[in-house]
Amino acid sequence: MTSYTDLEARFRRLGAVEEAIAVLHWDAAAMMPPGGAAARSEQLATLHGIAHRLLTAPEITDLFEAADAETAALGVWQRANLREMRRRWRHAAAVPPDLVEAMSRACSESETIWRRACPADDFAMALPGLERVLALTREVAAAKADALGVSPYEALLDQYEPGMTTETIDRLFGEIERFLPGLLDAALARQPSRPTPPEPQGPFPIALQRRAALTLMQRIGFDFAHGRLDESAHPFCGGTPDDVRLTTRYDETDFSKALMGTLHETGHALYQRGLPAEWRLQPVGAARGMAVHESQSLFLEMQLCRSRAFAGFAAPLLREVFDGAGEAWEADALYRRQIRVMPGLIRVDADEVTYPAHVILRYRLERAMLAGDLLPRDLPAAWAEALRNAIGVTPPSDRDGCLQDIHWYDGAWGYFPTYTLGALIAAQLFAALGEALPDVTDRVGRGEFAAVFDWLRARIHGKGSLLSTADLVQEATGAPLGTTAFERHLRERYLA
Amino acid sequence: MTSYTDLEARFRRLGAVEEAIAVLHWDAAAMMPPGGAAARSEQLATLHGIAHRLLTAPEITDLFEAADAETAALGVWQRANLREMRRRWRHAAAVPPDLVEAMSRACSESETIWRRACPADDFAMALPGLERVLALTREVAAAKADALGVSPYEALLDQYEPGMTTETIDRLFGEIERFLPGLLDAALARQPSRPTPPEPQGPFPIALQRRAALTLMQRIGFDFAHGRLDESAHPFCGGTPDDVRLTTRYDETDFSKALMGTLHETGHALYQRGLPAEWRLQPVGAARGMAVHESQSLFLEMQLCRSRAFAGFAAPLLREVFDGAGEAWEADALYRRQIRVMPGLIRVDADEVTYPAHVILRYRLERAMLAGDLLPRDLPAAWAEALRNAIGVTPPSDRDGCLQDIHWYDGAWGYFPTYTLGALIAAQLFAALGEALPDVTDRVGRGEFAAVFDWLRARIHGKGSLLSTADLVQEATGAPLGTTAFERHLRERYLA
Repeated sequence: MTSYTDLEARFRRLGAVEEAIAVLHWDAAAMMPPGGAAARSEQLATLHGIAHRLLTAPEITDLFEAADAETAALGVWQRANLREMRRRWRHAAAVPPDLVEAMSRACSESETIWRRACPADDFAMALPGLERVLALTREVAAAKADALGVSPYEALLDQYEPGMTTETIDRLFGEIERFLPGLLDAALARQPSRPTPPEPQGPFPIALQRRAALTLMQRIGFDFAHGRLDESAHPFCGGTPDDVRLTTRYDETDFSKALMGTLHETGHALYQRGLPAEWRLQPVGAARGMAVHESQSLFLEMQLCRSRAFAGFAAPLLREVFDGAGEAWEADALYRRQIRVMPGLIRVDADEVTYPAHVILRYRLERAMLAGDLLPRDLPAAWAEALRNAIGVTPPSDRDGCLQDIHWYDGAWGYFPTYTLGALIAAQLFAALGEALPDVTDRVGRGEFAAVFDWLRARIHGKGSLLSTADLVQEATGAPLGTTAFERHLRERYLA
Repeated sequence: MTSYTDLEARFRRLGAVEEAIAVLHWDAAAMMPPGGAAARSEQLATLHGIAHRLLTAPEITDLFEAADAETAALGVWQRANLREMRRRWRHAAAVPPDLVEAMSRACSESETIWRRACPADDFAMALPGLERVLALTREVAAAKADALGVSPYEALLDQYEPGMTTETIDRLFGEIERFLPGLLDAALARQPSRPTPPEPQGPFPIALQRRAALTLMQRIGFDFAHGRLDESAHPFCGGTPDDVRLTTRYDETDFSKALMGTLHETGHALYQRGLPAEWRLQPVGAARGMAVHESQSLFLEMQLCRSRAFAGFAAPLLREVFDGAGEAWEADALYRRQIRVMPGLIRVDADEVTYPAHVILRYRLERAMLAGDLLPRDLPAAWAEALRNAIGVTPPSDRDGCLQDIHWYDGAWGYFPTYTLGALIAAQLFAALGEALPDVTDRVGRGEFAAVFDWLRARIHGKGSLLSTADLVQEATGAPLGTTAFERHLRERYLA
């Protein structure tokens, strides 16, 4: 056995433990009765601690050194795997095991409380958990910042989007902030010139909404032998590449929320499914990062499924499932509803134009909290002010404000920017796909998605973590990550 | 930290890993799509390997020795905990880690194939997996037999029912075999003298069967904040004490199968829930063994829920759920159906009188296979012959024969005897309860179960693994484990 293959065997065990953690996380959100929370928190903390110990075993550094001497004999994927192993190790070795377990436990506990506090609109209930998670997150960030030689915020960001810097984000978000307010005003001003699309009349039974979601997932190409769709308070795509667990939530008065949410998660799911099977459980076989992950969900939800062509395919299918009749069920009405711009309170329900404002708000607030410039107890007021300034609306409650997202309560600090980075990549990919597959619109209109996802699998999914995000985007789209394609897409869809 | 508390901390981690394994097992049976099987097998093998390493860490033997010197300072529960730790360790240390992982993987794979082979009635499909599991089981049994100083079969038995010997089983099963054939004949001869109970007319929609099961579980005292009921091919009670996962399977032509199956699993579930909360994740806090576990399921399913008093409580409830009408829905008809004796093919559907014959058959066959006297490929013929000799029926297919139970395909060798040992204990417990709570029949008829389960919690559930099974039975019932109460119960119910 070479040092490299020894490392592969160790990371395989680590990967299996992390898959177990992923299934238990899904279960906690989608299946677990409330009384199981404390035990689950203990199970997850223990497994996180075990994963951490596997990754930071004393022999690992010697093995890395010995494997470096073997690189001449390694293929390009193996070398990339070694690089990704080291990246994972650097993050883990920076943090003592006690802190890892304390963080896992605090996140489970805080998330459990958030699940009750959010529907109850009770920020005070969630605050102590949030404070505890933030305190531990600052410890983790400080430790990783030292080890990686970056700022504490960048150390957190690096967990989700390797190599990303605040300088790049500030530059990209700055560009967005320069064109977006004008574009939003123009889109809102132009909107009344088109007739208001009629609304289908509900209620829409959950069983029918589920059938519609499953039908669309299947038509798009999701294989239910390798996954399932359930419900949870905060929709997500979890599980493992061979067993993807998607969740959604249903609103009986509006079927489009669950539907578009499901399509978003299906984008994530197809990425997970398309990861290189021959590198399962190895770091190089994992998703490249959360920006690329989000690019896949937004590619499907925003670029593809809010297109006029998709509305042409989906409208008859929805009419049949819901037994609808009348103009509200026509493709034109569906499309106009899909691209309606309406500054609102809830990020996950936001339209494409205002979505970046929600993300930028969270990016600024989480940086301020991490730096100690904003205290968690002052978050509701800061949130309300920032949202008013950004898009002119004020949350009437914390449920519709700073309680709406699970991320901070669950320890996912430094994650939010990846949503908008993903939107930029999605726009670049869709533009590149249009060049590679000129009849993509016709295909989508006919409900033929195979060529689209073959293209994505070859350029994105199947690459795993072989390349950096920057190189992956450059190779797939022929251009560096930027805002040009995104701005052009918005202008074409909302101002043309 | 004393050596004892160090051990407690280690076993707490082990307990948390084992809880994670239990949830993943439940998920594999109740939720997982088929394409997730290979990955799950890897996850479980890895976690089993980790648990094994935690339990056999080189420091453990020194810690045991040092903890022995501390016993003067330990309470009675702590001393019992130390004894149970050592028992767990002895089993683990006997088996090399590679064999543990190979066994886990072989069982997952074989079980996955069995899930398809059983409905397809294809024993040939399941045979290679069975052979592989048996080969590894024999290795495990040989290794443990050496370490424990018992026979290979007893070494397996000891995993499920600590301290049980084949001598005891042979004696008890011999006593049963002496009275059962005559009792069965007498019961069958007497049965026609009572009018044949009318059958309710189906189909019975699954949604209503589920509602009936949930309603009864709740009335009996199961707390759904700490558990759930789902479906699986082979019903079981899994999960953890604070998050019990029950499964059942529905037959639209006969609601009583799912209903009685659910009540059986509810007996297991209430035991799990009643284990001493202050000893969670410690060996002494675990269930005493599978005989006691089965005694709890059979206490509920057989002793309590097939009584005339229970039929009086349940019949109106069932009539309401299924919107039934007529004599078939009366308590008398329900009771007569519940106690109908009918030699049949399927163990889990068997009546109380013929059930032991199914168990004894499996006990003999698994001992023969383990000893090498019976080859797995000859199992179908041996099964058919044994069943014909025991109760005069012959399976028309392997699905109704040697494919019907998951146990051997899933590696649970040495488990079957615990069903009938449990039936003996259940009968003793019910007789003792009748002395302690003379109005138990009236209470059950009114649907009042609190006093019954308070009594069981105090005498059985809350004791965890504090006592040996022999002492637990003696203390709870005032008599050693025997066949007297079981025989008396059968005579009273079926021949009176």
